[in-house]
Amino acid sequence: MANLDLRPLLQDNGSKIILYVWDGLGGIPAGPDGKTELEAARTPNADRLLSQGTCGLLEPVYPGVTPGSGPGHLGLFGYDPIEYQIGRGALEAVGVGFDLRRGDVAARLNFCTLDSKGRITDRRAGRLPTDESKRVVGRLAEAVQEVDGVQALWSPVKEHRALLVLRGEGLGDGLEDTDPQKEGVAPLDVRAVDDAQANLRTAALARKVLAQAMKVLASETKANGVLARGFAKRPHWPGFQERFGLRAAVVAGTPMYRGVARLVGMEALEATNEIARDVASLAAGWDKYDFFFIHYKHTDKAGEDGNFDAKVNYIEEADGAIPALEKLGPAVLIVTADHSTPTAMKAHSWHPVPVLLAAKTARRDGVREFNEIACLGGGLGLRPSTHLMPLALAHAGRLAKFGA
Amino acid sequence: MANLDLRPLLQDNGSKIILYVWDGLGGIPAGPDGKTELEAARTPNADRLLSQGTCGLLEPVYPGVTPGSGPGHLGLFGYDPIEYQIGRGALEAVGVGFDLRRGDVAARLNFCTLDSKGRITDRRAGRLPTDESKRVVGRLAEAVQEVDGVQALWSPVKEHRALLVLRGEGLGDGLEDTDPQKEGVAPLDVRAVDDAQANLRTAALARKVLAQAMKVLASETKANGVLARGFAKRPHWPGFQERFGLRAAVVAGTPMYRGVARLVGMEALEATNEIARDVASLAAGWDKYDFFFIHYKHTDKAGEDGNFDAKVNYIEEADGAIPALEKLGPAVLIVTADHSTPTAMKAHSWHPVPVLLAAKTARRDGVREFNEIACLGGGLGLRPSTHLMPLALAHAGRLAKFGA
Repeated sequence: MANLDLRPLLQDNGSKIILYVWDGLGGIPAGPDGKTELEAARTPNADRLLSQGTCGLLEPVYPGVTPGSGPGHLGLFGYDPIEYQIGRGALEAVGVGFDLRRGDVAARLNFCTLDSKGRITDRRAGRLPTDESKRVVGRLAEAVQEVDGVQALWSPVKEHRALLVLRGEGLGDGLEDTDPQKEGVAPLDVRAVDDAQANLRTAALARKVLAQAMKVLASETKANGVLARGFAKRPHWPGFQERFGLRAAVVAGTPMYRGVARLVGMEALEATNEIARDVASLAAGWDKYDFFFIHYKHTDKAGEDGNFDAKVNYIEEADGAIPALEKLGPAVLIVTADHSTPTAMKAHSWHPVPVLLAAKTARRDGVREFNEIACLGGGLGLRPSTHLMPLALAHAGRLAKFGA
Repeated sequence: MANLDLRPLLQDNGSKIILYVWDGLGGIPAGPDGKTELEAARTPNADRLLSQGTCGLLEPVYPGVTPGSGPGHLGLFGYDPIEYQIGRGALEAVGVGFDLRRGDVAARLNFCTLDSKGRITDRRAGRLPTDESKRVVGRLAEAVQEVDGVQALWSPVKEHRALLVLRGEGLGDGLEDTDPQKEGVAPLDVRAVDDAQANLRTAALARKVLAQAMKVLASETKANGVLARGFAKRPHWPGFQERFGLRAAVVAGTPMYRGVARLVGMEALEATNEIARDVASLAAGWDKYDFFFIHYKHTDKAGEDGNFDAKVNYIEEADGAIPALEKLGPAVLIVTADHSTPTAMKAHSWHPVPVLLAAKTARRDGVREFNEIACLGGGLGLRPSTHLMPLALAHAGRLAKFGA
């Protein structure tokens, strides 16, 4: 099937779409009786929505491929994650609301602990508390501001994470990570991935910046070193409004998800990762936007912790927010996930995610329970996640007929 | 969905994968009560594997397209059969272990019986016994060794089949078959498919070689003629280990299947088409490889013969070998087919083939019987066969996360 540009078909009928993402929702058998977390959870609201809609399963990136948080969301937003790739640094920058400009090179930093011989003993500096991290970033921002005419900008993120942005003319982002991904060895040197002049020059600059940073950090006890990953520029992609004709807002309490949504042009509303408050924030922006992406984080965290009962409880909490969203009267209300995070695997996985789409225009199927197995019988079938946006637009009455 | 190069995601965790192919497994209703062969067969082992795994259906090449043996297997190996095409002659050569070199042109030969006027009366020379065929090939190999500075190399295959390889500089493989595909007419002349100099020259050479062969064969009673098909050079494709990071072995008693597996870089272990011995051969190579393709031939043969009961029996025999494979402890055990061969059609067909994948990381589905209809409800859905390899790698823990 060839790819279709939807733009000539777009029509604005004022209808609204809510995409409610339960992060890491999908599972594999892990609980009592070999159930998945979603099978074990009581989800009366999602089950009721099924009777007003249709369901199926979405494959996030590619068969068998486990998505990171960025690709998992991009697919739901209708951006093929294989075509639209983005470096970690740029994603992190946009996520914390940093004004990443065209030509800037961003890197994600992890504070780490080094021993007296410069070997890493803790790649996360004991998960440095956010306040501590802010203090340390403040020291760096004061001490290392410029190298050879290029600005070094520092920003705290959360816990042991921070952001470094190099701003100047003619920088390249083809740089390798300095994080060796293991302990007991020294951080790696910054290297260019090829012989391109911009990359070689930027590698030399980044080396100087990190060397100066190391000197500043030497007086720290926990965060006496720093590792850089995912050097990247901000990509310039066609925006969500241009592609789908929707003014879009994101309600996500975690910088990463807000970041990826902003990359495709969504505007960020206030968010806290407390679902009731986040729904209220969405409601406050109701008149101003056509499309709302609201993110529920805790399901993924519980999955990564391998805590089956916690994931079940969080799924039930997420389900509890559905009535407040319904009350706003969206033409289309979608519940799905960016990827699976089975507690049995304590990690993201490639397994397809259940999706339910409630709309007056939906063809109802016989499915009555929202879970991975029941949704196999749903009318949406098993499809790539990039199919979701055209289906959402269609059910919202926003796509005109194709051809005469 | 864009295509994805899996190589940057590969990780070697030492896990092993078995791909157990029941050739021509799929059917259409033909037996008592309108059952398929697989529905009629008792497959307790495959059914039990289902409870430890997931299932679905694979479409071998393209909707509605009936695969030959080569394309059917290439899809399972993760090589899109539309992109990776290979001529019959080259496939046959690699299958018999012939050292086909870059630039060689191979053709598959069929001995045939001609009447006094040179018309074909039997396209297979009464399915000439293999020993007879070897003797006749020996005569050709002695009498026709070289024409105009180009070597003619002859090799027996099985029954009435043989192989001709032309070896020399600047040969082309754009030649048409001399087999008219029917009886009562004379063999066709060798023609080039276009005006390319290499093809025209090679057509002239092949014409001389076959004319000399006909003279030698004139004294034979049954095999007094020969037909040439599928002139082809050996393709040079990226290997299985390069693409998937797996040291791979093939256990297949029939040259064709061994040939296609060797084309993608699998190493051939001993094989006899007796399943118990072939499983033992696989077991003997267990420590040396990561991926094992083991081929069960008889199901396809019974399908082509239109023998429903025989196919049922062979399916049950194939099922019986599953416990010995399980005992080896593969991380992933897959049972599927290269294509359907319904006894009702006595031929290969385009119908999707059932697939089951057993692994600890599989999301279980409710399917309890391994057959074409039940697998429609499986978690793998209906997908192109090229999706199988990424799914196998994922379930074996051999694919890292994509993107941040």
